[in-house]
Amino acid sequence: MTYIAPIKDMLFVLEELADIAKTSTLPGLEDATLETAHAVLEEAAKFTSEIVAPLNFEGDKNPSAWQDGNVITTPGFREAFHQFAAGGWQGIVHPTEFGGQGLSKLIATPCTEMQNAANMSFALCSFLTDGAIEALLTAGSTELKERYLPKLISGEWTGTMNLTEPQAGSDLSLVSSRAVPGDDGTYAVFGTKIFITYGEHDMASNIVHLVLARTPDAPAGVKGISLFVVPKFLVNEDGSLGGRNDVRCLSIEHKLGIKASPTAVLQFGDNGGAVGYLVGEENRGLEYMFIMMNAARFAVGLQGIGVSDAAYQKAVTYAKERVQSRPVDGSSRQPVAIIHHPDVRRMLTTMRALTEGARALAYVAAAHLDYAHYAADSATRDSHRALYEFLVPIVKGWSTEMSLEVTSLSVQVHGGMGFIEETGAAQFYRDARILPIYEGTTAIQANDLVGRKTLRDGGATARVILEAVAKTLAELESIDAGEAGNACRAMHGRLKDGLKALTDAVHFVLDTNRHDPNAVAAGGVLYLKLAGVVLTGWQMARALVVAVRKRTGAPDFYGAKIATAHFFADYILPQAPALAASILSAKDGEASLALAEDDF
Amino acid sequence: MTYIAPIKDMLFVLEELADIAKTSTLPGLEDATLETAHAVLEEAAKFTSEIVAPLNFEGDKNPSAWQDGNVITTPGFREAFHQFAAGGWQGIVHPTEFGGQGLSKLIATPCTEMQNAANMSFALCSFLTDGAIEALLTAGSTELKERYLPKLISGEWTGTMNLTEPQAGSDLSLVSSRAVPGDDGTYAVFGTKIFITYGEHDMASNIVHLVLARTPDAPAGVKGISLFVVPKFLVNEDGSLGGRNDVRCLSIEHKLGIKASPTAVLQFGDNGGAVGYLVGEENRGLEYMFIMMNAARFAVGLQGIGVSDAAYQKAVTYAKERVQSRPVDGSSRQPVAIIHHPDVRRMLTTMRALTEGARALAYVAAAHLDYAHYAADSATRDSHRALYEFLVPIVKGWSTEMSLEVTSLSVQVHGGMGFIEETGAAQFYRDARILPIYEGTTAIQANDLVGRKTLRDGGATARVILEAVAKTLAELESIDAGEAGNACRAMHGRLKDGLKALTDAVHFVLDTNRHDPNAVAAGGVLYLKLAGVVLTGWQMARALVVAVRKRTGAPDFYGAKIATAHFFADYILPQAPALAASILSAKDGEASLALAEDDF
Repeated sequence: MTYIAPIKDMLFVLEELADIAKTSTLPGLEDATLETAHAVLEEAAKFTSEIVAPLNFEGDKNPSAWQDGNVITTPGFREAFHQFAAGGWQGIVHPTEFGGQGLSKLIATPCTEMQNAANMSFALCSFLTDGAIEALLTAGSTELKERYLPKLISGEWTGTMNLTEPQAGSDLSLVSSRAVPGDDGTYAVFGTKIFITYGEHDMASNIVHLVLARTPDAPAGVKGISLFVVPKFLVNEDGSLGGRNDVRCLSIEHKLGIKASPTAVLQFGDNGGAVGYLVGEENRGLEYMFIMMNAARFAVGLQGIGVSDAAYQKAVTYAKERVQSRPVDGSSRQPVAIIHHPDVRRMLTTMRALTEGARALAYVAAAHLDYAHYAADSATRDSHRALYEFLVPIVKGWSTEMSLEVTSLSVQVHGGMGFIEETGAAQFYRDARILPIYEGTTAIQANDLVGRKTLRDGGATARVILEAVAKTLAELESIDAGEAGNACRAMHGRLKDGLKALTDAVHFVLDTNRHDPNAVAAGGVLYLKLAGVVLTGWQMARALVVAVRKRTGAPDFYGAKIATAHFFADYILPQAPALAASILSAKDGEASLALAEDDF
Repeated sequence: MTYIAPIKDMLFVLEELADIAKTSTLPGLEDATLETAHAVLEEAAKFTSEIVAPLNFEGDKNPSAWQDGNVITTPGFREAFHQFAAGGWQGIVHPTEFGGQGLSKLIATPCTEMQNAANMSFALCSFLTDGAIEALLTAGSTELKERYLPKLISGEWTGTMNLTEPQAGSDLSLVSSRAVPGDDGTYAVFGTKIFITYGEHDMASNIVHLVLARTPDAPAGVKGISLFVVPKFLVNEDGSLGGRNDVRCLSIEHKLGIKASPTAVLQFGDNGGAVGYLVGEENRGLEYMFIMMNAARFAVGLQGIGVSDAAYQKAVTYAKERVQSRPVDGSSRQPVAIIHHPDVRRMLTTMRALTEGARALAYVAAAHLDYAHYAADSATRDSHRALYEFLVPIVKGWSTEMSLEVTSLSVQVHGGMGFIEETGAAQFYRDARILPIYEGTTAIQANDLVGRKTLRDGGATARVILEAVAKTLAELESIDAGEAGNACRAMHGRLKDGLKALTDAVHFVLDTNRHDPNAVAAGGVLYLKLAGVVLTGWQMARALVVAVRKRTGAPDFYGAKIATAHFFADYILPQAPALAASILSAKDGEASLALAEDDF
């Protein structure tokens, strides 16, 4: 078995840290209980480990291929996607009104993690389809919704997001694709889009492209971008498929990783214009895109967690099998499995601690989104939405950056074998490398965390979170730790230092941005990483508190939680003061930006 | 141009930090002056940028291929290697007695860096040949030396190191290849060796394998390993080539990176035994191998520095060309080249600072080796050898670990384009990943630093280095810093903290190892990284002192040195206390090793 979903760990987070008992009291989520979660996770684990994971290595070896405008995906992908659709997995979180299962984000989240752990390339198809569904749910007309949503949600069709152009990557103000209105209410769409994930493939009968383009009289910049539906095959009134639309796949990219997922160059309108349907209102495309984007960014964070767990599992398996060298403490005269060597143990525990911390923070964020959607009163919805949106760039940025370290450590644990492609550890290292880049680089996430999430409300949301961390510190002080005393003391000390570091950084951002935005921007990514270290450490501290209360004393699940939290405290959290020192040092702007362009 | 050797930076280190004026007063190195260095580096820069670097991307796309036991290297490699040989580059550091140039290690070191920056796969061939030369120089009989050294040093033949077997990776005590003595003084060698770099290829007329194997009555473990020369083609009395020896290349590996360099599985003795010649004495193979190994490990450190510089240069070029987004400080209403964005600037400066620091430490180590070889009195030789050997695992471990970060940042600077293989940034990321693994993983380097380098002399060498750092701190205090006052203050504060952190860690290692070796081993890699951060930071501080004295005030070479050192102080050195905190936390052994095997 190449990947086994850590259901017990996932349920622990759902129950103890994200409090699913409480989210399942929200109106509309009455069925989304812990029991439901357990059943859904069991099914998802079965599907991902039996059907999806076995295709992962094959997809890397035998990636999607382009021929005459068509893309042939890896053998097995098409059939697996049909099973995915038949299982209702595409619709898990989407409204029952359009055929979805209407479950909570909290239950959908571990399922998304599993899919990505099993096979990131495969999971990307449903990932992009989710984005298209979100966009239509947010801003689509009733007609667009009725025509497209049921087939997207059933998995019969798939979706894409068409943002990037050769000259417009992170900066969407440079988008130059055109959409010319016709007499019939449709638009003729022209332009070239690049980096379009699953922009062409053979896994579904139609592809629904969501495309950013400008109408003729649109203002310049981001305020003149509109969003259009451009289906690969036109859709008749009765929902049946019509003729081929004027969009062609010119090529697919030769990539470092996620090779099975085709990354397409799409050409719109070479034969008179692709037929497009406006989503919502003209010139509001970026706004709609940002709604999709928050969901997509959160999901990329889950990809980072998933690939980390897969890389961790592979390294653990190898470390238990590979026998090499006698133990350093002289406890055996024979070579032992390398998991007994302290440095291998440290690497594996680092991987585990980083992954568990990121998972916990992501699931807690998902619970906030459930409140934001389902809570009865708007004040509750708003406060939870603010917390969710604060956490999204951290979940995206931190979980993906840490996945680089975790997948790298997996290669390292494998030693020389890790460098051989047949071993499979290298694939995770290559696959993960896209995660801090797409759906907004880590710097873009940091800009978001600084600008929209920290500065815009004057630090109000940040303060709510800092106070919550302080509350956990108080719990750690008051708990009867018993044998876990050292773990609790270590966590209390390190988390307290971490809280101070993060608090200092929040104040620095708030105090400095107006007069020295460059200094804040120079430390933006470090601020995001600091938040990642401290807030995932906070979740580990919360897990520690639960485990201390529930432990039996014998080595067990809770004992492992205590040990992992202790490790996180001593080996990960010390990074926090170091990051804060760098962030705050930018005050004079000297070190960070003193080198002139010509000096490089 | 894909790579331009940073000659000015290199000469700065040779002159100001490694004090080439002084090493060139050593008996035998009178010609190895700064002027010689300048001339040699100019030639090396020309050769590597014009001949070697242009083959790098091609080697990745069109790697070495195996067919019927033969290996066909990338088109162009063979010709380039002949030019390399004709230029005398293989022999640069080797004795004139056997046709080498007899230059100092200090002058050879930047040349090695350049070769690896230009094309790591290509450079590996001469790298392994150097290892074979070292082994023969150290322990070979006069006959072996005369027969093999001139052709290896001229580059007519190449060499390999055959250590690893499927069951014997890091643990050479498990080596099971056999060498049976014959009546004529030769041995019949049998066994399978894996991961043999350039174990088979078409770039030279013969390959001289240095092979670890056991004689029939050898003791078990590492004390029963002997070293043999096993040439691909037998060599006649007159030096001409004879028949094919009984060694075959069974296959080559499909690797994550350094794809152009063939990594061979070699089978010895399937047809009665490969003819082998004992090097030195029986059962002393590991000892000889360790002499080669120190040189090889140092060279792997240079590979890390080289690939980092290449990745840095590529990122700088892209960042100056790619226009995207308006500046965050509102200084332009138009999108600007991304080098103007603070986070890109931070990434580029991080890459630059890490690379410069590692380069300086490596070159300083090379100078110690020159003293160890050439100093007139043995006390001087011994003290410098101790310093060199202390620094080798740090140069190897730190320079390679940091190369993972630098090559990853290069991908990140390129954004989505970084993930596309045609861009070339991904190749550095893949190539670099072997560096912390081969010639001893970072954990093996850490064991060496802890055991042979710190504990064995009771911390004496470590103390010499700590005192030297303190001396630089005193210089920083007394210098007239002028406009560089902030840089000097920042460096002084951070380096002082770093020195304390490293001092604490040295004491921890000395105090703890006897009663709790697992606690030391759990933090071994962190101890190595701490030494890397502090000692490369120390070199940056020394560079800062020089630059402050020589600066003109205008933006210039020395101004850039000051800014880079300032950045290193504020953005890299703060990691030191964090690393020390983790190392020292292992005191109770709880957090690092509390998870049981079954918990994973």
